[in-house]
Amino acid sequence: MPFIQIHMVEGRSVEQKREIAAAVTADVSRIAKVPPDRVKIYFFDIKKEDMASGGVLRADEH
Amino acid sequence: MPFIQIHMVEGRSVEQKREIAAAVTADVSRIAKVPPDRVKIYFFDIKKEDMASGGVLRADEH
Amino acid sequence: MPFIQIHMVEGRSVEQKREIAAAVTADVSRIAKVPPDRVKIYFFDIKKEDMASGGVLRADEH
Amino acid sequence: MPFIQIHMVEGRSVEQKREIAAAVTADVSRIAKVPPDRVKIYFFDIKKEDMASGGVLRADEH
Amino acid sequence: MPFIQIHMVEGRSVEQKREIAAAVTADVSRIAKVPPDRVKIYFFDIKKEDMASGGVLRADEH
Amino acid sequence: MPFIQIHMVEGRSVEQKREIAAAVTADVSRIAKVPPDRVKIYFFDIKKEDMASGGVLRADEH
Repeated sequence: MPFIQIHMVEGRSVEQKREIAAAVTADVSRIAKVPPDRVKIYFFDIKKEDMASGGVLRADEH
Repeated sequence: MPFIQIHMVEGRSVEQKREIAAAVTADVSRIAKVPPDRVKIYFFDIKKEDMASGGVLRADEH
Repeated sequence: MPFIQIHMVEGRSVEQKREIAAAVTADVSRIAKVPPDRVKIYFFDIKKEDMASGGVLRADEH
Repeated sequence: MPFIQIHMVEGRSVEQKREIAAAVTADVSRIAKVPPDRVKIYFFDIKKEDMASGGVLRADEH
Repeated sequence: MPFIQIHMVEGRSVEQKREIAAAVTADVSRIAKVPPDRVKIYFFDIKKEDMASGGVLRADEH
Repeated sequence: MPFIQIHMVEGRSVEQKREIAAAVTADVSRIAKVPPDRVKIYFFDIKKEDMASGGVLRADEH
């Protein structure tokens, strides 16, 4: 029952999420030896104003 | 200070969240023996394109 | 596919977690109208030195 | 690589998030002795109907 | 700055985590088009008594 | 009711967590204009083998 939360800056397409879900599930299933249908993934789109590195919002980076 | 995060596919009504908050708080308070006002719950609505099981997005399931 | 994370101060018994899992799953299944086996719960035991309210660690409260 | 998730009720301005990101990063960097650019922060805006205390939705409080 | 949290039942080896980290980072970097060093992964080992499906603790499953 | 989760590599002392809790609560309270006692913080100690950047476990970095 691996449960995976993926946070990314907003803007990825559904097609990209579809590919990531398929690839990550295949990896985790194969390496951790669990059936693929037990792998659950949730994506979180994060706005650039809701993400900071080094104390600076991504929205403020140049 | 139990802190509970509930992720569900989007589409639940405020009334359903209201009932879940009341019921889950009553359970946890009673069983864990903490005052109800120390139980905090956060809901997260997840889109069908942001949730995958078995490597397939919920939005793609039939 | 409701996914629930429950953080509590350490010290709850397995029996208490067993009861909370059963009760919370029954609530969410009934109110959100999802089959019980789709409700997943993860517990996180938090040490008193890893939890703060009002800027004070729980371990330091009197 | 401190990773910090900050959940707050919606309504804070970008300027408030900017100040919180700067202040929290400075604190954690100084006290935990890590370079500021390794401190990552993600903000989550939570609606009043998605937050409960004592079994009551924030949206229902008076 | 993709940030990924992977929760799995305890018992995976460091070698399995090493392989999962490498594979998942390669996938997300390639598909989301971000440099690999921006992909951060955190693993959480969950005990069988801290995980429930269908209201039953994993530790109680037969 | 700001809720803050701070994940750091293991090894920080209780004294460092005490100082971080006090400083971060003071910042968030002042900037977001919420009473300090509504600010809740949870710390998560992460092992070096449970953290990866660029697809490499922190435990494997030189």
